[in-house]
Amino acid sequence: MTFRITIGPRIRKSPYFDATVAAGVSDMTVYNHMYMPTGFGDFEAEYRRLVETVALWDVAAERQVQIAGPDAARLVQMLAPRDISKMRVGQGRYALLSDVTGKLINDPVLLKLADDRFWFSIADSDMEYWVGGIAAALGLDVEVTEPDVSPLAIQGPNAPLVVADLFGEWVHDLKYFAFRETELDGIPLILARSGWSKQAGFEIYLMDGTRGTDLWDRVMSAGLPHGIGPGAPNVVERTEGDLLSWGADTRPDANALELGLGDFINLDMAPDFIGKDALTKIRAEGPKRRRVGLFIEPPILEPSDHNWLVRDRGGNAAGLISVAVPSIRLQRNIAIALIDSPLAEIGTHLVVETPSGPRQAEVTSLPFIQPG
Amino acid sequence: MTFRITIGPRIRKSPYFDATVAAGVSDMTVYNHMYMPTGFGDFEAEYRRLVETVALWDVAAERQVQIAGPDAARLVQMLAPRDISKMRVGQGRYALLSDVTGKLINDPVLLKLADDRFWFSIADSDMEYWVGGIAAALGLDVEVTEPDVSPLAIQGPNAPLVVADLFGEWVHDLKYFAFRETELDGIPLILARSGWSKQAGFEIYLMDGTRGTDLWDRVMSAGLPHGIGPGAPNVVERTEGDLLSWGADTRPDANALELGLGDFINLDMAPDFIGKDALTKIRAEGPKRRRVGLFIEPPILEPSDHNWLVRDRGGNAAGLISVAVPSIRLQRNIAIALIDSPLAEIGTHLVVETPSGPRQAEVTSLPFIQPG
Repeated sequence: MTFRITIGPRIRKSPYFDATVAAGVSDMTVYNHMYMPTGFGDFEAEYRRLVETVALWDVAAERQVQIAGPDAARLVQMLAPRDISKMRVGQGRYALLSDVTGKLINDPVLLKLADDRFWFSIADSDMEYWVGGIAAALGLDVEVTEPDVSPLAIQGPNAPLVVADLFGEWVHDLKYFAFRETELDGIPLILARSGWSKQAGFEIYLMDGTRGTDLWDRVMSAGLPHGIGPGAPNVVERTEGDLLSWGADTRPDANALELGLGDFINLDMAPDFIGKDALTKIRAEGPKRRRVGLFIEPPILEPSDHNWLVRDRGGNAAGLISVAVPSIRLQRNIAIALIDSPLAEIGTHLVVETPSGPRQAEVTSLPFIQPG
Repeated sequence: MTFRITIGPRIRKSPYFDATVAAGVSDMTVYNHMYMPTGFGDFEAEYRRLVETVALWDVAAERQVQIAGPDAARLVQMLAPRDISKMRVGQGRYALLSDVTGKLINDPVLLKLADDRFWFSIADSDMEYWVGGIAAALGLDVEVTEPDVSPLAIQGPNAPLVVADLFGEWVHDLKYFAFRETELDGIPLILARSGWSKQAGFEIYLMDGTRGTDLWDRVMSAGLPHGIGPGAPNVVERTEGDLLSWGADTRPDANALELGLGDFINLDMAPDFIGKDALTKIRAEGPKRRRVGLFIEPPILEPSDHNWLVRDRGGNAAGLISVAVPSIRLQRNIAIALIDSPLAEIGTHLVVETPSGPRQAEVTSLPFIQPG
């Protein structure tokens, strides 16, 4: 079941679009109204590069929502469930955004660029409208915009070597989610230690959309001695490592507590944030569902095309699969699912409704593979 | 330049997904986080059906943002630039939504279902967050949700015959954008006179996502005597008829006045709405750009893959193409563009930077083809 993706002016092209076409991109998705590569024709080779050497990803679709102005810090604190008052310029924080019902509506990284300027580096939903609507309703003195900023990810065990060759040895001292504004041969950018994999990695936030091919080519050249090649956010690696995929894992109504992300939400913090009341109530009652791992019986599955239904052994609906894939490192079928809490204990036996028929499954802990 | 679209759980499937696969869908896009068919392998046949007989489109991705509760009408009036106080239940209105800077952020149809319940039937941006953010900030007594409602469009000169065969002769009395809640063999739905073409047309808002294939098959059967076949929103017909494509025509920062949509914005209305101040200022100063048609010289073009640059004859940037296609009915290249006002007079000669080199072009009025 394969379909062509329509290429037209309704969806934006990344600054790296031409470079990825030259590199042989074969598969794409749409993310934040932008084409995003998902494959270059050899999935296993791309996976091996990511976990064994280093891969270059066009993740320009990870757009920034910039909040700038005198009320910027106040507005950010209304949205982010963590105390941002002690964040320093150059720091980043994982900042889960919830609506008034507690539903998770995005899981961005928050970057502090100045005391009065922040970026949410967002997953695939229009947070510009959430942030901008609240600012408009309250008449806050901020500008909410999407700047010309397009991340390029360098991920894999050799990523620090590539990035040090490009920028210098100081990059080894960057802490996770920390960033520094710099340049590369005149290309303005921010270098951050981050990326949507459980491997070592950096992201280069390109700040001039006309220089995409220049940047791609420079990184590719620097990476050749280290085994670099094109790649994309990898569904098998992210499942093995239990990275959250907003949309797949969260739609339509999951909250951060049932997703197991309570450590990133400070419900006892003094400043209120949107969603705090609802999440406090959910915490008191206990989440109705839990995000868990599943081992699914052989034979090896195709990756899941959609949210398959999970049943208990009596045939009652127990939850939904977020993602199911054959693990390359474990050589068995693994899945992530949101399961009704009474059925989410480790060792519980369940049944997954795959397109090729029901399969036995067993609840297990996450992640499947600890980072190395 | 063709790429596969990744099919996975991160993007939702329409209730009509299986039916469109059975009908031979070949091309897809993503719209409101949902796969949406864009072609069935024979573009010209699909176009002919739309303008000569009747076509069936999966437009489930045109999602609804429901606003329900005591403050619903108040909130809608804060957003919509038209007086909604006289709307009756069963009426629809084109309701352009702007942000505080006047930027158009969606161009939905507003449906009034009850005095305290409305739907925005939206284009491809997350209006749930715009509406929900404002409601949260102001503490309004409303619920903002996305209900289980998935439109199926029947478009083309024979559409009224098909719909009358299914529902009865009363459908001929429905005014444009009016709707009625009804059912078809137990399938709950709303029938509306609407659709994203300049042909006659209806949309069936399916209200039970488990019944997509049932509904698709029933409409297809009823349509066979009238020449129905599968299709999709058609880039050539929409360009000929000058329908706005939110995203293609509007990104990143266009406002409704420069898009020529001033007739749908009541700046002299008593209740304020978000964006009114900015748009009033833009009206006073005169829009800096204008949406116009362009005839582009032969030979026949491929449809535009992106927003091509337009220059004046001195080589200066004059604007961007929204869409350029070979018109099937006019047998010449046509385009829609947003052009700096001084260069937007009918008859102005411009140059379009196509991927195959510059082409001469001439500004003309819109639409290229009048309905009817």
